[in-house]
Amino acid sequence: MQLEVPEGYRPQDAGSLPAYLAEQPELRSALGGAPEAWTVEEVGDGNLNLVFKVRGPAGGLAVKQALPYVRLVGESWPLPLSRAHYEHLALSQEARHAPGLVPAVRHYDETLALIAMELLEPHIILRQGMIAGTRYPRFVEDITTFTANTLFHTSDLALTAAAKKDLVAAFAGNSALCKITEDLIFTEPYMIADNNRWTSPQLDPYAARLREDGDLKVAISRLKLRFLGDAQALIHGDLHTGSIMVTESDTRVIDPEFAFMGPMGFDLGALVANLLLNYFSQDGHEERPGARDDYRAWVLETTRGVWASFGEKFLALWRGAAAAGDGYPAALFQGPLGAARLDQERKAYLDRLYRDTLGFAAAKMIRRIVGLAHNIDLEWIEDPERRARCEARALTLAREMMVNPGAFPSIGDVAEAAAELRGWVPKLG
Amino acid sequence: MQLEVPEGYRPQDAGSLPAYLAEQPELRSALGGAPEAWTVEEVGDGNLNLVFKVRGPAGGLAVKQALPYVRLVGESWPLPLSRAHYEHLALSQEARHAPGLVPAVRHYDETLALIAMELLEPHIILRQGMIAGTRYPRFVEDITTFTANTLFHTSDLALTAAAKKDLVAAFAGNSALCKITEDLIFTEPYMIADNNRWTSPQLDPYAARLREDGDLKVAISRLKLRFLGDAQALIHGDLHTGSIMVTESDTRVIDPEFAFMGPMGFDLGALVANLLLNYFSQDGHEERPGARDDYRAWVLETTRGVWASFGEKFLALWRGAAAAGDGYPAALFQGPLGAARLDQERKAYLDRLYRDTLGFAAAKMIRRIVGLAHNIDLEWIEDPERRARCEARALTLAREMMVNPGAFPSIGDVAEAAAELRGWVPKLG
Repeated sequence: MQLEVPEGYRPQDAGSLPAYLAEQPELRSALGGAPEAWTVEEVGDGNLNLVFKVRGPAGGLAVKQALPYVRLVGESWPLPLSRAHYEHLALSQEARHAPGLVPAVRHYDETLALIAMELLEPHIILRQGMIAGTRYPRFVEDITTFTANTLFHTSDLALTAAAKKDLVAAFAGNSALCKITEDLIFTEPYMIADNNRWTSPQLDPYAARLREDGDLKVAISRLKLRFLGDAQALIHGDLHTGSIMVTESDTRVIDPEFAFMGPMGFDLGALVANLLLNYFSQDGHEERPGARDDYRAWVLETTRGVWASFGEKFLALWRGAAAAGDGYPAALFQGPLGAARLDQERKAYLDRLYRDTLGFAAAKMIRRIVGLAHNIDLEWIEDPERRARCEARALTLAREMMVNPGAFPSIGDVAEAAAELRGWVPKLG
Repeated sequence: MQLEVPEGYRPQDAGSLPAYLAEQPELRSALGGAPEAWTVEEVGDGNLNLVFKVRGPAGGLAVKQALPYVRLVGESWPLPLSRAHYEHLALSQEARHAPGLVPAVRHYDETLALIAMELLEPHIILRQGMIAGTRYPRFVEDITTFTANTLFHTSDLALTAAAKKDLVAAFAGNSALCKITEDLIFTEPYMIADNNRWTSPQLDPYAARLREDGDLKVAISRLKLRFLGDAQALIHGDLHTGSIMVTESDTRVIDPEFAFMGPMGFDLGALVANLLLNYFSQDGHEERPGARDDYRAWVLETTRGVWASFGEKFLALWRGAAAAGDGYPAALFQGPLGAARLDQERKAYLDRLYRDTLGFAAAKMIRRIVGLAHNIDLEWIEDPERRARCEARALTLAREMMVNPGAFPSIGDVAEAAAELRGWVPKLG
C-alpha cells in the first residue's frame, strides 16, 4: 500500500498550526487574542495520529490530524487519511444520539484530515484514573447512556431499513481500520505472528495453549465472522478505557475512528474487558496486599453496573417512541398478548447481546495480553512475575467466557469468577 | 415517493425498440438483417418490468426495461429505476462465479434502465414445467452449482473484508427492492394488511391463527432482522422457481433485481419453499388420485438433492484454494489437528445455514399463501376446496419449520413431514 495524500495535505506541527487555526474565524475567536500568544503542545499519546493541545487567552482546542501511516510505527505501516472522515462522521452521529458525551467538534478539514474539538480539561483518560485507583461516580450512568443511545438509535430497532443501509454504505469504506481489528484481535493472538508479545517466559505456556486450543479458535472465528458481516448498529469500534475521558462529574467518549456498522456486543465487550483487565491489574498496583480491596470491589460493581444499566436503558428506548425501526414492527405485536410477547423477546434479544458481549470481551482481554497492543493497566506492573500472575488470571477467565459463555448466566457470575480467580496462584513458565 | 426518471429515459414499446437496438452495432448484428424485419413481442409476464422478446434473422434478444413503478400495479406504486443497475451488477457477479448459469448480457443502458440479454429458447419457466409435471434432470446439479458458487465466492470465506465491504456498499442502495421483501414476506402475512389475500373462507381460520401466533411472529421477526442486517453473501433475493428458466439440459437463473448482500439461507430457502409448494400443489393438478405419485416423489427427491448437493459443493469450495477470505483464516487451523477442527466447524456452519434455510423457506411458503403474491402452482387449482387443502398442508408444515426447526434435523425429515401431511385432511373454514 502506498502513502496516498490529497493535494494540499500536509502534516501540521507546533509551528504551522497557529497560522492555520487563525484562518478559521470560529477557532480564532474560541482561542482569543493573537496567534502568537497561543501555545501548542503535541501530546502524541495516540498510537495512530497527531494530537495537539492549543491554548489561547479565551480557551483551548484539541486538534487531531491523521497521518498517512500509523504514528507509532511509521511509514512502514500505511493507514488511509480517510479515518478522519469516518471519525468525524461517527462523532456527529454520536453527538446526535448521546449529546454531551463526546467532545464538541469545532472544525473539520477533509483535505488535512484534521478535526478541531473542544479541549477537555481537566479530564484525564479513564484508564489512567483507574490505575491510580480513582472512583468515577458518573461513569456507569454516562457510559450506558452513551452505549444504549448510540447503539439503539443506529439499529434496525430505530431506523428504517433504507436509513440503516445508508449508514452501512457510509461506513463501509473504513475497511482499513476494521482490518486492524480483524488482524490484531480476531486472528494473530491465536497463531504465531510477529506482532505478538507477552510477558515471557512466564506466560509462554499460556500463549502456546491459546494456539493449540481448537474450541477457542473456532469461537474466535465465529466472533470474527460477526464482526465482518453483522451490521447491527454503528459501533465506536475501540471503546476501551483509553477512549474515555473523565472527571468525577463528566464523561466523554473520544476517538471513534474505528467506527462502522458492526455488532453491538463489540462495544459493550470492550468496556467489560477493560474493566476486568483493570480489576486483575490492581494486584500489581496496590502498595500492600489488600490495600486496593475497596477499589477492586468498585471496579467489579462498575462492571456489573455497565451491563445492568445498559440493559435497562436499551429496553426503555425499545419500549418508547423511538422504536420506529423496521425490526420487530409494532404492527405485529398489537394488544396485551402481543405486547407481552414482544417484551419477552426484547429480553431474549438482550440475552443474546449479553452472550455476544462476553465473547467480544474475552477477545479483547486476550489480545491485550498476548497480542500487539497492551494495556498500561498491566504494562505498568514492573515485576514480570507479579504482572504475569495478573495476566494469567485474566487469560483464564477470558478463555472460559469465550468458549463457555453459558457458564456465566449473568454479569454477576463474571464478576464472581473474576474474584475467585484472584485466589488462584497460576503456574508460570 | 415520486416517479423519478433521468433525462433521456423513456419506456420502450414494440414500435420504438427496433430503432434503439439498431443503434447498438453488437445488437444489430446479433439480430441480423434490417430492423424492419425484426419482430418484437412484449411478454409482460414479469410483475415489475417491461420484457420484450426480439427476433431477427440471425438470432434473438430478451430486452428488459425497468419502469419507475411496479408494472403490475401502476404508478401508484413507485419503484426506482436503479433496480436495473443492481440487476446488471448482480448478473455480472453471477456470470463470473457461475458461468453459463445466467443469461449472457449483451448490452446495458443505465439511462434507459434497460438490459438486453441472450434470448433463452426453448427454455420455459421452471415453475410452469413443474406444474405440467415435467422432470428436469439437470436442475439439481445446475442450481446447486449456481448457489454454492455465487454464495461462497461473495462471502467472507472467499473475499477479503475490504472486497466484501465494497460489495456491501455497492448493493446498499437497492433498499427499495429489499423493502418489498421486508414488507411482503417478513411482515404483512402476520398482520391485517390490505395486500393480503388467501383462499377464503376456507383458509380464514389459518390466516387468523398466523396473526395470533406469538412464537411465529417472534420467529419471523428474527428472520427479518437477519435479512436487514446480516451481510453474509451476495444473494439473488428472489430465487423462486419463477426466476429459473430450464430445458431438460440447461438451467438459467434470471431476474436478480432483488440482489443485495444478505443471508445465504434466504436464497436456499426460496428454492426449498417453492419446491415444497409445488409438491403440495400436485394434488390439485393430478388427473386422478395418485396419477402424480411418481412426480411427487421426484419433487421431494429434488428438494433433498438441492440441499445435499449444495452442501457438498459449498464444502468442496471451502476446502479448496478459493477459501482465501478473511473468515476462518487458514493460519489458525494448521496441522492435522487444526485441519480436523476446521472441517468439523465447516459442517457446523452448514448446519446453521440449514436452519436458516428452513426458516426462510417457511417464510416464503407462508407469504405465497396468505400474502400479496401467490404461486401459480396453487393459484391454478380451480376448485377452492381442493386448493385450500393443499395450502393448509403447506402452511402447517411451514409453521413448524419456522418455529421448531429442531424437529427437522435433516432435509429428509422435511420431505417426510411433507409426505405425511398429504395424508391429513385439513379442517377448512
